[in-house]
Amino acid sequence: MSRASGKMPNSFDPANAEGLAPRTGDLIARRQELLGPAYRLMYEKPLEIVRGEGVWLYDADGRKYLDAYNNVPVVGHSNERVAHAICDRVQTLNTNTRYLDENLLDYSERLLSSHAPGIENVMYTCTGSEANDLALRIARHSTGASGVIITQDAYHGVTTAIAEISPSLGPNQPLGSQVRTVPLPQVNADVPIEQASATFAASVSAAIEDLEQQGVGIAALIVDTVFTSDGVFPEPVGFLTAAVEVVRAAGGLFVADEVQAGFGRTGDAMWGYERHGATPDLVTMGKPMGNGMPVAGVACRPAILEKFGRGLRYFSTNAATSALIAAAAAVLAEIEDRNLVENSRAVGTRLRDGLAQLATDRPFLRRVRGTGLLIAGDIVDPDAGSPDTALALRVANGLRDRGVLISTVGPSASMLKIRPPLVFDMDDADLFLSTIANVFDEEHGATPSSS
Amino acid sequence: MSRASGKMPNSFDPANAEGLAPRTGDLIARRQELLGPAYRLMYEKPLEIVRGEGVWLYDADGRKYLDAYNNVPVVGHSNERVAHAICDRVQTLNTNTRYLDENLLDYSERLLSSHAPGIENVMYTCTGSEANDLALRIARHSTGASGVIITQDAYHGVTTAIAEISPSLGPNQPLGSQVRTVPLPQVNADVPIEQASATFAASVSAAIEDLEQQGVGIAALIVDTVFTSDGVFPEPVGFLTAAVEVVRAAGGLFVADEVQAGFGRTGDAMWGYERHGATPDLVTMGKPMGNGMPVAGVACRPAILEKFGRGLRYFSTNAATSALIAAAAAVLAEIEDRNLVENSRAVGTRLRDGLAQLATDRPFLRRVRGTGLLIAGDIVDPDAGSPDTALALRVANGLRDRGVLISTVGPSASMLKIRPPLVFDMDDADLFLSTIANVFDEEHGATPSSS
Repeated sequence: MSRASGKMPNSFDPANAEGLAPRTGDLIARRQELLGPAYRLMYEKPLEIVRGEGVWLYDADGRKYLDAYNNVPVVGHSNERVAHAICDRVQTLNTNTRYLDENLLDYSERLLSSHAPGIENVMYTCTGSEANDLALRIARHSTGASGVIITQDAYHGVTTAIAEISPSLGPNQPLGSQVRTVPLPQVNADVPIEQASATFAASVSAAIEDLEQQGVGIAALIVDTVFTSDGVFPEPVGFLTAAVEVVRAAGGLFVADEVQAGFGRTGDAMWGYERHGATPDLVTMGKPMGNGMPVAGVACRPAILEKFGRGLRYFSTNAATSALIAAAAAVLAEIEDRNLVENSRAVGTRLRDGLAQLATDRPFLRRVRGTGLLIAGDIVDPDAGSPDTALALRVANGLRDRGVLISTVGPSASMLKIRPPLVFDMDDADLFLSTIANVFDEEHGATPSSS
Repeated sequence: MSRASGKMPNSFDPANAEGLAPRTGDLIARRQELLGPAYRLMYEKPLEIVRGEGVWLYDADGRKYLDAYNNVPVVGHSNERVAHAICDRVQTLNTNTRYLDENLLDYSERLLSSHAPGIENVMYTCTGSEANDLALRIARHSTGASGVIITQDAYHGVTTAIAEISPSLGPNQPLGSQVRTVPLPQVNADVPIEQASATFAASVSAAIEDLEQQGVGIAALIVDTVFTSDGVFPEPVGFLTAAVEVVRAAGGLFVADEVQAGFGRTGDAMWGYERHGATPDLVTMGKPMGNGMPVAGVACRPAILEKFGRGLRYFSTNAATSALIAAAAAVLAEIEDRNLVENSRAVGTRLRDGLAQLATDRPFLRRVRGTGLLIAGDIVDPDAGSPDTALALRVANGLRDRGVLISTVGPSASMLKIRPPLVFDMDDADLFLSTIANVFDEEHGATPSSS
């Protein structure tokens, strides 16, 4: 549904403005007039957020919301250490990479040491879109080929080149002629690793053959290593490696898009590709990297940069400036000092177990899945087994009305997407579970547990 | 020279690392190891900057440099009002455009009111590259055509689509097959407005004809309205309008890239297109917008967004977040309250007059030109009249050694580029002029004025 119309999952529909609080209605009208028709707000009743602290957001009426959705403030809203680092820099110096900056080098060293051996260079951008765009530019320059393979409902960003590899933007966004999509093996059923591995590799192989027949060749396979926009499919662990080998054998590169999976989100490792044991040629990083400050980048094997760096220069005035790198360094320090990868695993497990428990007597909730603090579950019509987008939206909006923020995802926007800051703790998880239990019971009318 | 090799004008050459201070050499070696070969440092002896205040930068040895180059810190390095605005937000809330935010609307209103009537919508990105990329994406979607016309030595940014319209990145960056370049009428001689206007319109017209013959049509003419990378050619004022009419008559759009010219840089107006009396369909803004924070955007006529906004949604997680908009609002307030457009005009005039005076008995300095605080001058072999890149570089590096920062620009990197923060005052201008007079005299050996 959302895919067919190009609409965003769980977005406010201006046709439904009636019944909103007057201030909300006024802000929405002004916003539409100033920002135009391309922007979307979340929820049936959009939120005006005025304050954030840790896992909590506060609206203009002083109501508080447990944030189980925003992955950007990975170390918490208004994190003190990050705020302090930024304040210090904007009062002292905030300049660019055309000058020497020891802090930038120290940070780069720490960041690279968290990556697989061989990933030894890093280049900076401001956004994940730019990081993917730069990775693709480098991959094409390095291989001399231009073909790209992505998953069926991929999202990689919004620049011209990257929108063309982001089918989840909807049918009005044409894919590039050098782009091929491959299905994920485990979307419709959980399949064993050998089968998933072989199926995915075969799809990738067929796509390469097609690209070669068209004379464009294979530059890169690029995937979000937790397949968020496809509907969150981090399992089975390891199914990527066979496909990566196929790509390399054909002269292509493997780009791991870690904008969603990176910085400990999965609870298993700092990087999603590590879980799969598939070391990339290029890695892109974004969103949580600066806890809300626009820091993003590409890390890669030095050999891949040789040709690009010899023939072309790279500079982004706004990227990796002093204040942004200070923010990024504080984020890394918080993740390490507060053991947030381990926290993501432990709290994520509690959430997933709790949801799986709820699913046992709620047949409309199926396939609770995820890794660490990235969790999804299908909302279906229990009889037909088909996606129930309307119910999924009622759940997301019901939670919002009860002070908990999540969203929906997947080709039909019928899957719940739960993705809180990594400082989410056990109490937060329990509050989340009790609230969603209430919403399930109320939104779905008479339910097994209340009957 | 610089163009042929794809090198950056006035950049450090790693082959010349000998003779650097040990700490500088060490930082450069680490940097190359970590960031790879695509990054460039400025100056023969790169700078390690550790503090900035107003128009001054301080290196690690405590030496201070008058900043006559950086346009990003438009209201001064470490500007207090901007710093305060950012600190306040990162301690309170820094979230995105999926929620309602009154500050974003207030800022958008103020920003749009500085633009020509008809420019009524604004969309945000983090960088000027992204702003140009989005403008092009919208222009192509809106017109259904894909051809783009740019100037011969244009620079518009580094995304895949925008690098393809940035010939100044050098010959290793291929232009897109749907891209046509046109020469600027006044590069080799100052020509009267009627002639410049007619010549430029004729070049654009021929390019359109070619694009139509190729079947791609004309989506947009995009120009930096002060033609910085072409060598700074803001004159003759008004020469753009005839070409814009030709583009519109063919169904194309005019995109004014104000990343360099915008926010009062020209001293004549807030926006470069205003000087030319050529109202754009889309305007892109960047660099100075957040005084170093990554705020950028596209403003446009609402009609152009209709089709795009209906069919596609737009969201950039990191763009227009609370802290970035607070920074941008503080920048606008500083520009207004401190009359920085007027200051740019007055101080720019003093600088230009002073340089013109110096040129009278220094035949290697020709065609001092510019508008407001964007100033250039050709460095030539006085006998042949041909570009003297080596001397231009000696001037830039000689100034650096004497504590003043500028750079070089143009197809041969033989033009001086002077582009200080807009808080540059008359004393700064006088210090600049006396220092460059010394450099001219010393770098050029025996000179007319010292003989």
